[in-house]
Amino acid sequence: MAKEAVTGLLRSRVASANAPGCEFPLNNLPYGVFSNGGPARCGVAIGDMILDLAACEAEGLLDAGGCFSAPALNDFMSRGRAEWDRLRAEITRLLAEGETRPVPLVPMAGARLHLPIRVAEFTDFYASRHHAFNVGCLFRGPENALPPQWTHMPIGYNGRASSVVVSGTPVRRPMGQVRGEDGPLWSPSRRLDLELELGAIVGAESEMGRRLSVEEAEAMIFGYVLLNDWSARDVQAWEYQPLGPFQSKALGTTISPWIVTQAALEPFRCAGAPRENPLLPYLREERPGLYDLTLGWRMNGQSMAETNYSQMYYSSAQQLAHHAVSGCPMRVGDLLGSGTVSGPTRDQTGALLEMTRGGAEPVLVGDAQRTFLEDGDEVELYGYAEAADYRIGFGPCLGRILPAVE
Amino acid sequence: MAKEAVTGLLRSRVASANAPGCEFPLNNLPYGVFSNGGPARCGVAIGDMILDLAACEAEGLLDAGGCFSAPALNDFMSRGRAEWDRLRAEITRLLAEGETRPVPLVPMAGARLHLPIRVAEFTDFYASRHHAFNVGCLFRGPENALPPQWTHMPIGYNGRASSVVVSGTPVRRPMGQVRGEDGPLWSPSRRLDLELELGAIVGAESEMGRRLSVEEAEAMIFGYVLLNDWSARDVQAWEYQPLGPFQSKALGTTISPWIVTQAALEPFRCAGAPRENPLLPYLREERPGLYDLTLGWRMNGQSMAETNYSQMYYSSAQQLAHHAVSGCPMRVGDLLGSGTVSGPTRDQTGALLEMTRGGAEPVLVGDAQRTFLEDGDEVELYGYAEAADYRIGFGPCLGRILPAVE
Repeated sequence: MAKEAVTGLLRSRVASANAPGCEFPLNNLPYGVFSNGGPARCGVAIGDMILDLAACEAEGLLDAGGCFSAPALNDFMSRGRAEWDRLRAEITRLLAEGETRPVPLVPMAGARLHLPIRVAEFTDFYASRHHAFNVGCLFRGPENALPPQWTHMPIGYNGRASSVVVSGTPVRRPMGQVRGEDGPLWSPSRRLDLELELGAIVGAESEMGRRLSVEEAEAMIFGYVLLNDWSARDVQAWEYQPLGPFQSKALGTTISPWIVTQAALEPFRCAGAPRENPLLPYLREERPGLYDLTLGWRMNGQSMAETNYSQMYYSSAQQLAHHAVSGCPMRVGDLLGSGTVSGPTRDQTGALLEMTRGGAEPVLVGDAQRTFLEDGDEVELYGYAEAADYRIGFGPCLGRILPAVE
Repeated sequence: MAKEAVTGLLRSRVASANAPGCEFPLNNLPYGVFSNGGPARCGVAIGDMILDLAACEAEGLLDAGGCFSAPALNDFMSRGRAEWDRLRAEITRLLAEGETRPVPLVPMAGARLHLPIRVAEFTDFYASRHHAFNVGCLFRGPENALPPQWTHMPIGYNGRASSVVVSGTPVRRPMGQVRGEDGPLWSPSRRLDLELELGAIVGAESEMGRRLSVEEAEAMIFGYVLLNDWSARDVQAWEYQPLGPFQSKALGTTISPWIVTQAALEPFRCAGAPRENPLLPYLREERPGLYDLTLGWRMNGQSMAETNYSQMYYSSAQQLAHHAVSGCPMRVGDLLGSGTVSGPTRDQTGALLEMTRGGAEPVLVGDAQRTFLEDGDEVELYGYAEAADYRIGFGPCLGRILPAVE
């Protein structure tokens, strides 16, 4: 993984942002939506504080056409990449060490974080070769594990946008149809699972009937969040042929509250997994499109697995270019899940289905055996990119399982 | 098909609405969005005229909180079923024969019809047994044609909402990956098809984590449109395993401009196809949930096939109840495609894939053989329910194929 040159820590007037290991140094500046008593509005994380962007506009420190007073970043994203760049530069100046203009800062500890965007549509991909092979073995056996088109296109499906929630929202175990001896059973899901993913947020629209090059697609991506695509594997196994997962993936999808911009991740750009065959021209990347980004997950506080986003076979830009290949129009606020990020070994798996080999090999969590998630279990995803003297983090992406209502 | 009592033609002050065979008599009153020079706003079709609902509100004839000035019916639908009923009664009075208050009517001939709703999310089902079996045979052979869960649940998948367009919008033949001898080929789709469907429009929301009974689900359905889910069969065959159709269904989905309400269809309620096994309780209907509704399609003006919506195995209410079974929240403006409506014979098939048996048996259209759609072909869906002395129609649902951009 050949990293491009990484600039060092940019020092901030907010002291906590300069501390070693801080997820939100001046180099990061992720966007989110928060409230602290008043209405929900846009902010940027810096150290242990939030820069109140709506107040910045009200006080004349920034000008984004008033769109930072909205409870979602869609209007800001719609203003386009030149504005993304201009505002990033202005916010960097406002929060730099030595800057003396008063700025409206809110302690993160007392703020509530909301879903940062109105999710237009949600699409989930399947771009880790290890995950696709591992799960394919369990569903279809090793010989049919990897579908023949897998190395030729980023396979994806449309998910449900209305069930995307922000970190901290409880997730209820679903009831549903599962396979029984003699037809379906009505049951709470007994094979409830997580999926460790990165989500790309589309910040620009494209017209119907128009394809996108990988370069155009990349320029439309505003930033990234952590994404947990909760999955009911028993419901999935019974329902998914031939039209794909449906209710097994509609119980909830949790994203982290801070959108880490492409600009913040730029120094960590790297190539992905080795390519097994040439791609068709519309999917070829001129420059590497993945990031050297550690992704991992904990269960009830215990570290379970850790892997790297650079394991992926397709970048978000390639996924977005493929999404539009039929002429499908893309919209501001579209969310593209990377697919579960898994490495080759068990302690690098991004789902319990893989980690426990379909439930056959339980893992120890605290004092208890686990195959799939139990009621009350809490899953937390984390992710960060690391340079010599700073870290770009995503903040928490967590959810706790509530019991089914039978 | 035991119809419930059908009231006779309600006579309107708009003479064209009383003519035999008129699609929009006073019994119908479908909602749409139109413009005629000014901004797009809500209207109701009556005979060959449109009642301008925004003007009705401005003139104090109706009160719906100003929401008829919007270029979509979502705000009106959000007001709830009691308001749907109240406004229907008031509009019926305004347009009845003998009513003398002046009303703002616009000739339909000079108006442009727009997409009637902001589509929140689009879900497509697969609820005709004939279609599922016919297509299953072509994709997987007769032994695996019907998936084992098919008679136990309405199989569906999330489609793409951004590519839903109103009747008359041209649809471009997509480029894409198709299966070649030795890996994928980059090609315009050579197997472009239509799908004859009915679309149900959800007019109320449901909370995350909450299931819906079939009765609750039915009460959330505002009305119905014709729906053509254009499909690139060669792209579909290569891409669809294991996560379902994606780009093959994202090139465009055409809906008719007028939403025929549940209230207008109520006299045509009837039972569906015979049930082969008992359903789980959450899918059981207390009363029949389909409609005796003729659905057909023409190609370049020639009648191709005609079938009936009562052929379906699952109603829209059952589909909606299943959609929420995992706790998936539903939203105002969700669009649920019924799935292709096909009867048992070739002249009752709702897709060329079925009619030509996968392209093996061409059909004659005018002087030319057709297996799949050619550039310039125009497909028009139609649909109506018929009583002794009136008809409830949907208006046109048409689209013409533009050549691929290579």
